[in-house]
Amino acid sequence: MNSIHHPHHLHATNFHNHNHQINKNRVRMVDAYQDVKTSKTNRLGETLSNLLNIQKPYQKINPTPSTHSNWNVLNIHEDKANTPTMSPKEDISDRWRDIHGVQEWEGLLDPLHSLLRREIIKYGEFAQATYDALDFDSFSDYCGSCMYNSHKLFDKLGLSKSGYKVTKYIYAMSHIDMPQWLERSRLTYTWSKDSNWIGFMAVSDDEESRRIGRRDIVVSWRGTVTPSEWYENMQKKLEPIGYKDSKVEHGFLSIYTSKSDSTRYNKSSASEQVMKELKRLVDFYKTKGEEVSLTITGHSLGGALALLNAYESATNFPRLLISVISFAAPRVGNIAFRDELYQMGIKILRITVKQDLVPQMPGIVLNESLQKFNDFTGTLEWIYTHVGAELKLDVRSSPYLKRGFNFIGIHMLETYLHLVDGFVSTGSTFRSNAKRDVALVNKGSDMLIDELRIPTCWYQLAHKGLERNSYGRWERPKRDPEDIPSPIREEHKS
Amino acid sequence: MNSIHHPHHLHATNFHNHNHQINKNRVRMVDAYQDVKTSKTNRLGETLSNLLNIQKPYQKINPTPSTHSNWNVLNIHEDKANTPTMSPKEDISDRWRDIHGVQEWEGLLDPLHSLLRREIIKYGEFAQATYDALDFDSFSDYCGSCMYNSHKLFDKLGLSKSGYKVTKYIYAMSHIDMPQWLERSRLTYTWSKDSNWIGFMAVSDDEESRRIGRRDIVVSWRGTVTPSEWYENMQKKLEPIGYKDSKVEHGFLSIYTSKSDSTRYNKSSASEQVMKELKRLVDFYKTKGEEVSLTITGHSLGGALALLNAYESATNFPRLLISVISFAAPRVGNIAFRDELYQMGIKILRITVKQDLVPQMPGIVLNESLQKFNDFTGTLEWIYTHVGAELKLDVRSSPYLKRGFNFIGIHMLETYLHLVDGFVSTGSTFRSNAKRDVALVNKGSDMLIDELRIPTCWYQLAHKGLERNSYGRWERPKRDPEDIPSPIREEHKS
Repeated sequence: MNSIHHPHHLHATNFHNHNHQINKNRVRMVDAYQDVKTSKTNRLGETLSNLLNIQKPYQKINPTPSTHSNWNVLNIHEDKANTPTMSPKEDISDRWRDIHGVQEWEGLLDPLHSLLRREIIKYGEFAQATYDALDFDSFSDYCGSCMYNSHKLFDKLGLSKSGYKVTKYIYAMSHIDMPQWLERSRLTYTWSKDSNWIGFMAVSDDEESRRIGRRDIVVSWRGTVTPSEWYENMQKKLEPIGYKDSKVEHGFLSIYTSKSDSTRYNKSSASEQVMKELKRLVDFYKTKGEEVSLTITGHSLGGALALLNAYESATNFPRLLISVISFAAPRVGNIAFRDELYQMGIKILRITVKQDLVPQMPGIVLNESLQKFNDFTGTLEWIYTHVGAELKLDVRSSPYLKRGFNFIGIHMLETYLHLVDGFVSTGSTFRSNAKRDVALVNKGSDMLIDELRIPTCWYQLAHKGLERNSYGRWERPKRDPEDIPSPIREEHKS
Repeated sequence: MNSIHHPHHLHATNFHNHNHQINKNRVRMVDAYQDVKTSKTNRLGETLSNLLNIQKPYQKINPTPSTHSNWNVLNIHEDKANTPTMSPKEDISDRWRDIHGVQEWEGLLDPLHSLLRREIIKYGEFAQATYDALDFDSFSDYCGSCMYNSHKLFDKLGLSKSGYKVTKYIYAMSHIDMPQWLERSRLTYTWSKDSNWIGFMAVSDDEESRRIGRRDIVVSWRGTVTPSEWYENMQKKLEPIGYKDSKVEHGFLSIYTSKSDSTRYNKSSASEQVMKELKRLVDFYKTKGEEVSLTITGHSLGGALALLNAYESATNFPRLLISVISFAAPRVGNIAFRDELYQMGIKILRITVKQDLVPQMPGIVLNESLQKFNDFTGTLEWIYTHVGAELKLDVRSSPYLKRGFNFIGIHMLETYLHLVDGFVSTGSTFRSNAKRDVALVNKGSDMLIDELRIPTCWYQLAHKGLERNSYGRWERPKRDPEDIPSPIREEHKS
């Protein structure tokens, strides 16, 4: 079916595919929602009615794979209370190329190979870290920064056993109007009005490198937190990238490449920061004779940035093995962009959830409350396309999740990681020996069934960070000096 | 003006008023909104349009007393950062009867006497404690209970220097449908499905008793937290109390007097629990030859319960000096009830905020969102009346508070305490040497101006009480056994 509509696609997917059989896996690589249409008749009335279908995912379609009764779920949940939250990491040194996607993940996705599942979750937790450590207190001096110094980040987030070390923080121009108090305040120091912490780079340590068979460099991109960012992201305008016909969405590219001498953190762009650090790391490990891979991850907007980052990295480091593991990423570019990514040998695994609307973007835009859908103004040409293999999840597969449509909850990365952890194969029930802590799903949402008795949106600081001083007054404590962002320190590190 | 409409009132206020002059203070004792009308024509159309006037309190009326610029406010705020949050307590042993209201607080309210202000805040913080310590996590085993054992309560809330010791917790039938999970859960122990922690009793220690000139027993009543409770409170039905013509609102009386043998905590009613403990304490201190007073406090619904409690206490302990310090209390009973309270010698100080709608209830009821107003069904007879002296505050007097109507924020007790702290006299500016921590206002609301950079609704537990176990799983920790409510322990204590 897809081959009829998208001749380019087959070409592209075959570019690095040594097995030319049309198999189930390859079909899954194609986004089911990827309807490339340039006709003006494809107005939003149609899109909206498609959406309405998507909005009722629980109407039957397939008999829901969940056959657990809530009672069983609770038993299983309680039995796991005193068990580790992760499958042990196994030695993948002799299989890492397959897991890295050199074979386009053929035969590994459905059923999902347990070694691949474990790696997907590892990278997903790097992406999650960019949310968990963000200071989003608009009254904070450091709003939009990471709360912790880079050498503390993983410890603070319980990722000390990840096997990776953070080497660099990435900043992007925020494009967000800051609250007016900043303008009027008499603060002598504000970390930055123009920049946001947008991610980090990390590299596998010796032990992890032995386990995974190579030195792995990670770039983890933060997604959007506030609705206003979504608006900006969806500029609905394609612009060229590179020297060929590739075009990508203007908003994404702008975040990736913007810089300004008047800023403290974006005298160089996110793109330039990453390229510089990547060169340093690649040179360093190559001179040591090590095999090096690059894995780029991100959720939502972060998944879009990951794709731009992969494109640029492949351009600059043609022989580097590059994979993208993205979660809930929207469409980013046109067909030429997709084809160029394939031709450069970039391996892309898109994790999507069937009921999530963001991977269907651009195509819809959300109003401020992020609960209703507005149609576009009508100028959009439907030339955005997805790229890569797809691991497609279904919220209905989990007996832990509420039934009912919850845009934010379904889109959130913790929901994705939960579903990856439980995914066995299309149509099968949730993996009974899934170990990941189910409570994490509700960190920032209301997705878990009430029987589990996990509070909703529970990931929060005590008293929003206020502490009592010696007089009993509630104050925002001074940030540990080493956790205060510093452009000089960032510069010296690399 | 009031004497024309309410002949009963003058009779009542004069009952214990040795000074028969009509003075400014006495006029303030009368509630400006107390329009006693039984006419059926007083329909809600009228009420609603009155409300609409009240909803626009910032339209001018008086020139706003706030003349501070925000800049000055910030300077003052910063200067106070390293100062105590309270005025020191002074010795009031020779003036305590006046402060307790024996003279109906004549000449003490406008301007507000500093000694009285300090005492009002002391009692207000006891009322606030009933909110701060409530477990309102609907997934908790102990939802609706106090999070801490009674001997820890004040320490946990930073009230260790209050000079009082908690002697007893009070429970009331909750009348609230509990979430369904409780019914279905396999918990072997739930603290109570029927009861809520509704307040506590405390008694002044020796040092405080010396300072205030007598042994002071306090009953502090908790108000409502959830909108659903408001609905129940406002049953719009008067029923008799006592043996005369006094009638009070059905819902309040029901909370105060309900009991059931099938419950664990309300085999006796809140009323009976308090009366038993009160008898024990009064007997104990009377036999020691001490002078004893009773001060009953509460906010909102708690203020209504305080009045019922005062009525009953005066009936049972006719010679006890009884005061009520209520905050934001609604109307409770009819004119006969008011007159009986006066005749029994109960001294009542109602703290109200001009823009707060709750003291104008019954008369309006709020819809579920608590943001819009619905009219009554029309059966209400307007026979509810306020009672006692009134200290009337104005949100516009504080330069720290946002302009704009915020029903919840204006009604909250912390807003009241802030305004009491800053009140000098009607029409004067906010007290420049007010010491109370302004940040407290935003504990559960969004009332403070942005320039102060205090987060909104910041009073919250880290991770809503979840903690990581040794495996890294997020769990609700077991409650400290001594903090688990126990009917047996409650019984043994008194």
